[in-house]
Amino acid sequence: MALYVQKFGGTSVGSVERIKSVAERVKRFRDQGHQVVVVVSAMSGETNRLIGLAEEINEEPTPREMDMLVSTGEQVTISLLAMALHRLGVPATSYTGAQVGIRTDSAHTKARIQNIETNDLQQDLDDGQVIVVAGFQGVDDEGNITTLGRGGSDTTGVALAAALNADECQIYTDVDGVYTTDPRVCSRARRLKTVTVEEMLEMASLGSKVLQIRAVEFAGKYNVPLRVLSSFDEEGEGTLIVAEHQESDTTMEEPLISGIAFNTNEAKLTVLSTPDVPGVASKILGPISDANIEVDMIVQNVAPIGDHTDFTFTVSKADYRQTQKILENTVLPSLGGGEVRGDDQIAKVSLVGVGMRSHAGVASKMFRVLAEEGINIRMVSTSEIKISVVIDEKFMELAVRSLHTAFGLDRDDVKEEA
Amino acid sequence: MALYVQKFGGTSVGSVERIKSVAERVKRFRDQGHQVVVVVSAMSGETNRLIGLAEEINEEPTPREMDMLVSTGEQVTISLLAMALHRLGVPATSYTGAQVGIRTDSAHTKARIQNIETNDLQQDLDDGQVIVVAGFQGVDDEGNITTLGRGGSDTTGVALAAALNADECQIYTDVDGVYTTDPRVCSRARRLKTVTVEEMLEMASLGSKVLQIRAVEFAGKYNVPLRVLSSFDEEGEGTLIVAEHQESDTTMEEPLISGIAFNTNEAKLTVLSTPDVPGVASKILGPISDANIEVDMIVQNVAPIGDHTDFTFTVSKADYRQTQKILENTVLPSLGGGEVRGDDQIAKVSLVGVGMRSHAGVASKMFRVLAEEGINIRMVSTSEIKISVVIDEKFMELAVRSLHTAFGLDRDDVKEEA
Repeated sequence: MALYVQKFGGTSVGSVERIKSVAERVKRFRDQGHQVVVVVSAMSGETNRLIGLAEEINEEPTPREMDMLVSTGEQVTISLLAMALHRLGVPATSYTGAQVGIRTDSAHTKARIQNIETNDLQQDLDDGQVIVVAGFQGVDDEGNITTLGRGGSDTTGVALAAALNADECQIYTDVDGVYTTDPRVCSRARRLKTVTVEEMLEMASLGSKVLQIRAVEFAGKYNVPLRVLSSFDEEGEGTLIVAEHQESDTTMEEPLISGIAFNTNEAKLTVLSTPDVPGVASKILGPISDANIEVDMIVQNVAPIGDHTDFTFTVSKADYRQTQKILENTVLPSLGGGEVRGDDQIAKVSLVGVGMRSHAGVASKMFRVLAEEGINIRMVSTSEIKISVVIDEKFMELAVRSLHTAFGLDRDDVKEEA
Repeated sequence: MALYVQKFGGTSVGSVERIKSVAERVKRFRDQGHQVVVVVSAMSGETNRLIGLAEEINEEPTPREMDMLVSTGEQVTISLLAMALHRLGVPATSYTGAQVGIRTDSAHTKARIQNIETNDLQQDLDDGQVIVVAGFQGVDDEGNITTLGRGGSDTTGVALAAALNADECQIYTDVDGVYTTDPRVCSRARRLKTVTVEEMLEMASLGSKVLQIRAVEFAGKYNVPLRVLSSFDEEGEGTLIVAEHQESDTTMEEPLISGIAFNTNEAKLTVLSTPDVPGVASKILGPISDANIEVDMIVQNVAPIGDHTDFTFTVSKADYRQTQKILENTVLPSLGGGEVRGDDQIAKVSLVGVGMRSHAGVASKMFRVLAEEGINIRMVSTSEIKISVVIDEKFMELAVRSLHTAFGLDRDDVKEEA
């Protein structure tokens, strides 16, 4: 007998039919002798409907009242799911975040969980009940309803799993696991059986939206085995997110590289200036940061050829024009001259894998593969478990596919399939 | 400065625009220096939408889960109303039934209020906040969400007014007060300035659906001044429901009779039997009661002319055919013969007024007025503050209008109006 915390997102409970099908899945686990705690989101569309009502009334609603409002979405789902379980003869009880004792701070709309009281839950589980908990919400010390922010239901699931010392926290979603890369770009993408928390965080921050970053961090911190599964596929095993790869994984999966992330939502800007200006970096980035523009990659050549320093960084494409203006109108004058060059037709491609820590040569192999395809590298940035390159946007698919094959990530069965 | 508890029903908060207009009304009271606690229902249609979802999932949902589900309706309204008040610059805080400490028993879907903790509320009021409370709901000792049953928001309002010792509990609805009779039947119907709790209970049970009976009883028990007002009419004073009429009311309103109630949803049945059968009444009504059929008026002539007892009673029209069958197939054989006569084309018309207690002659005046119009009386039944007659259905409007005029209930200005 194991204790599972199973989280179903808004799409998985988006209709009466889907709620019934979640109930059937939960029943199958319970029929196998397992204890189950279910965490659910609001039915898809419901949160947006409620936010729409609020916006019609007050363009700047207070966060406390927004939490009061949107927390009803999950409350509807928990009662409906409990009713669906009852219909199948499964004893079940629903609880709001407040009722289950999910204590948070008072940062409405983005509260953080501080503590969960599990005594009553444990008693219910021991009595054979399935527990259905409203995700995304909690209660502060004054009894105000709080929410954890969008996607916070994942965090609720992981936090409950940690508090109850569950055997596994299962996140059901509309994909069947974490892939080596986006299958829409690379048909040979393969579902990973396991991925480490560190890798998952790198991949999530690079654009893979399978799981909330906070939930993954939480799982890492409290050592909760976390599995991503499809709510529409009964058979799949999904992807297990682990603290570190087991020895057996290493042999089986050769996880030198676990995956390839990419995005095309950044733009690149370069400032060419005379080399004798001290504090170039802060003079360039200070005004950008003052304008609340986030900078991602940064590359500076301290000893350039010729008489220029070139300082290059990327920002979100949405901030590209504004950043260009700030550089020209504010930064260049403060530097006493120089030149700004920009490019918003770029892609960022990253290899991610804890295995590269102990392997030299990943970077050089990556560069060689790209060079063989005739792809020029515009920027490089590295971390312990990641190498990112910026290339021309038009080469993105080619780069991802070439690297996917070169680093042994392709599915074995790809030739038999369409 | 006075403390008002104002309750707005589902129609009054049925749209974003109406919620805004409730906020404006509350603001005007507060601008006059008053403290305001607002109790709201779910937006009209919302409770039925939620019940519809439940029915699609489980035909017999547990009462606990139904309460969990439908209580979200009021929670949406309180947050939206608080936002609307904020937009007008009015400090306001919303509370669910559980948060405000409305303790009930555990009779889900029809719970009864046991206690309200008012300390925090009083503090908020003293801080200048408008308090917005979810009607219809509470919490039991185990922390489960309960509901008071349909229309329970009126009860929430009265109970809060009692607990806070409010100066007045105002129930805003889609009518502008309690009338002497239904204006659709009698255009001369007049809005009552005051009506007693007793009268209101008689009128409510006779079909006037302005207020929940429970709320009126509660107001009577705890001596809460209760006023019914229109949420769409800014100027009206509505009707004040009082423990007893003041001396000044008596002179001004001559409340010998306060109102005339009527309905056409009953049918009349008569059993003619031989007079020497003992226990006729229980032999007739026993089988009716066993079939869960409710009997309203009962008249028995113990010493009839000739050799028959006639025993007459009324039931709901919906139960008419079934009652007739029971009488013929079960009751007549047990009486050893007799005859059943029935009539479902009847109306019941009742005069209600605490003033008739101390005045003889109300009944004889009533009978005379009806006789002058050529209306035969089929049954009579009296209580302390009510006289009911059963007449042919076709005479109902005529009877109501004649009695309304004869007992001095007509509006003074009726001739000037259409």
